[in-house]
Amino acid sequence: MAATLLALYKRPDGGDEALQTFWHRYRDEHMPLIEKVPGLRGTKIWNVSRRYAGDDLVALCEMYFDDKAALKAAMGSEEMAAAGANLADIAPGLLTLVALEESPS
Amino acid sequence: MAATLLALYKRPDGGDEALQTFWHRYRDEHMPLIEKVPGLRGTKIWNVSRRYAGDDLVALCEMYFDDKAALKAAMGSEEMAAAGANLADIAPGLLTLVALEESPS
Repeated sequence: MAATLLALYKRPDGGDEALQTFWHRYRDEHMPLIEKVPGLRGTKIWNVSRRYAGDDLVALCEMYFDDKAALKAAMGSEEMAAAGANLADIAPGLLTLVALEESPS
Repeated sequence: MAATLLALYKRPDGGDEALQTFWHRYRDEHMPLIEKVPGLRGTKIWNVSRRYAGDDLVALCEMYFDDKAALKAAMGSEEMAAAGANLADIAPGLLTLVALEESPS
């Protein structure tokens, strides 16, 4: 069964300028590092267009793997460690990272 | 362009029993209310199987609409108000609700 890794980002302090800097660094620095992660089959990036309740999220990224074993291997890879270190610089304290499985309806 | 509404739920206080109660009430009470919302084209429920960083999320639900206008109409509907009132009972303070648009890669 496919495995999905979901990264969620809260709004950085510093207004629109900080948010634009986040997006630029996310695309130009972070995503190229993520794309090197072994076993990654694809990604989808979402922009939060409106908040109705709760946390002030600004962006989400879905990362797809063939199965849980591939996701586990990816999480232990040097490439993921490099991507994580980059995030600690561009979005300190703003990340939530979880693995998802589709739940039967 | 299709519009997606994303609900994220944090872990309730009270251990495994509280989490099971949340899931039961979510499926048996909340989802039937959500399914009555006008313009809703489909839903997908995700279980958080593992947390690597950040907030202690346990569940996500994607809700699909034809476009932003349909999503806006749904958010103003009596049916969504009823679903929201139910959530305030079964998951008080645990919900984040945002609208998403796919971001160009």
